Amino acid sequence: MPEPTYQRLAVIGVGLIGGSVALAARARGLAGRVVGYARSDASEKRLRELGVVDEVAREIPAAVDGADFVVVATPVGAAASAAQSALRHAPKHALVTDAASTKARLVERVVRDAGEAASRFVGAHPLAGDHRAGAEFARADLFDGAATVITPVAGASDDAQHRVAAFWEALGSRVYALSPAEHDARLARTSHLPHVAASAVAAITPEADLSLAATGWADTTRVAAGSPSLWRDILLANSEATAEAVDRLREELAQMAVALHAADGDQIEKILQRGKRRRDALGG
Amino acid sequence: MPEPTYQRLAVIGVGLIGGSVALAARARGLAGRVVGYARSDASEKRLRELGVVDEVAREIPAAVDGADFVVVATPVGAAASAAQSALRHAPKHALVTDAASTKARLVERVVRDAGEAASRFVGAHPLAGDHRAGAEFARADLFDGAATVITPVAGASDDAQHRVAAFWEALGSRVYALSPAEHDARLARTSHLPHVAASAVAAITPEADLSLAATGWADTTRVAAGSPSLWRDILLANSEATAEAVDRLREELAQMAVALHAADGDQIEKILQRGKRRRDALGG
Repeated sequence: MPEPTYQRLAVIGVGLIGGSVALAARARGLAGRVVGYARSDASEKRLRELGVVDEVAREIPAAVDGADFVVVATPVGAAASAAQSALRHAPKHALVTDAASTKARLVERVVRDAGEAASRFVGAHPLAGDHRAGAEFARADLFDGAATVITPVAGASDDAQHRVAAFWEALGSRVYALSPAEHDARLARTSHLPHVAASAVAAITPEADLSLAATGWADTTRVAAGSPSLWRDILLANSEATAEAVDRLREELAQMAVALHAADGDQIEKILQRGKRRRDALGG
Repeated sequence: MPEPTYQRLAVIGVGLIGGSVALAARARGLAGRVVGYARSDASEKRLRELGVVDEVAREIPAAVDGADFVVVATPVGAAASAAQSALRHAPKHALVTDAASTKARLVERVVRDAGEAASRFVGAHPLAGDHRAGAEFARADLFDGAATVITPVAGASDDAQHRVAAFWEALGSRVYALSPAEHDARLARTSHLPHVAASAVAAITPEADLSLAATGWADTTRVAAGSPSLWRDILLANSEATAEAVDRLREELAQMAVALHAADGDQIEKILQRGKRRRDALGG
């Protein structure tokens, strides 16, 4: 067994993503020991039962004590202060990354308050997940083939950028580097807008119609089962770019409404072609 | 082996749905022999290679000759005239059903022109499918656990209603009876609207962003890969009800846009709760 890259990995927030980081880092020999931060008695108990981490700490300073790499995987609303706390209390050589799904405000806040320690922070967003939340759904292969965006800013050291990228790559993901603002603009279109659209389609379906909902409805609305409080924070943290994407969607739907009201088959097909072309470009 | 319910089943239009009807009817002992109608040399050749049906006929009159049960499973634009032709040329005791995903205009057209033969026609819509079209994706279990709506109208005999319901039930589906108009109104919300929404989300995503599309985008847009020409006909055949559903979706999205522009977290969460409640009611 070769020496692990990091002796002690701290995971702050051990849900689906944090738990999967822990499992993948151990499975791939990236981390010697993994300590997880649990905020409540209930989550401490669950983490001990699940065995997703080697140790559980109940305070962030204790969790990052002696750690050489820290991953913050709390809900987005708590990520900035958790990352600040980790930078403050972890050893001076420790690197800190995160997994939050919006970046601009978070990175700005972390860097603004971190002083010199900002050189050891590189924000990240692994585009992996599941509509089910919680460490019980964590899996070592969650990041296999997924994209991870890292969002380094001017203050981060080259060494930190390089090693944080290597960490997410070692977990199995393809790593892209974008500015935090560019990340948020793109994710508004590829993640936050689909969530809003799925939720809206679900919301306007009368309950009595659900017996006639087949795979089309089920697929299109699947992500609407996600936690409204988690998604509230995600959408709030990226509200301008998401609002812009929603407005763009409303325009596209308005065109279809016009074509439908006019029973204009050629125009209907033209609009559907646009969607198919883009969907086919993804595959799967 | 008990006697099959029908000696000779004719399937007009052997794609995903028609092919699956053929496979399921044989697998469940519903049909002795299955004859499929192929419109072109290419589809005749493919049907012979796939072995989905026992015989291939190149004209509808020949396909329904001697049949005691006929399933019309052409694209929706061709279904009414195919059903009329089947009613005209099949034996006088033969029942005719269809599988088209819109019903009001189709049923009206079939019944208007069929005279007495209308008593042997009962429209149906099995809510099963796949975004992949074609007999090569047909499977005997496609209808297992799916809903099938039958849309009998005043002219249909009780015996025909009963036996057509029993046929779709024997293929594995749960059968509901609705008026054609009620079927179309509900399907506008559970099927046609999700298709339009999925397509619109896909269409407005810049191609350059697709490397950052994860499962949320993939699920939400999946059905947009469906054939634009097939869906053109479906949407045209149900354009008023679908237009109404699209307008309702635009209102729901407008509310979210307002909440996002105002960065109103409580309102955002309230809207997302509506979607989650409905999505959770379906499960899966």
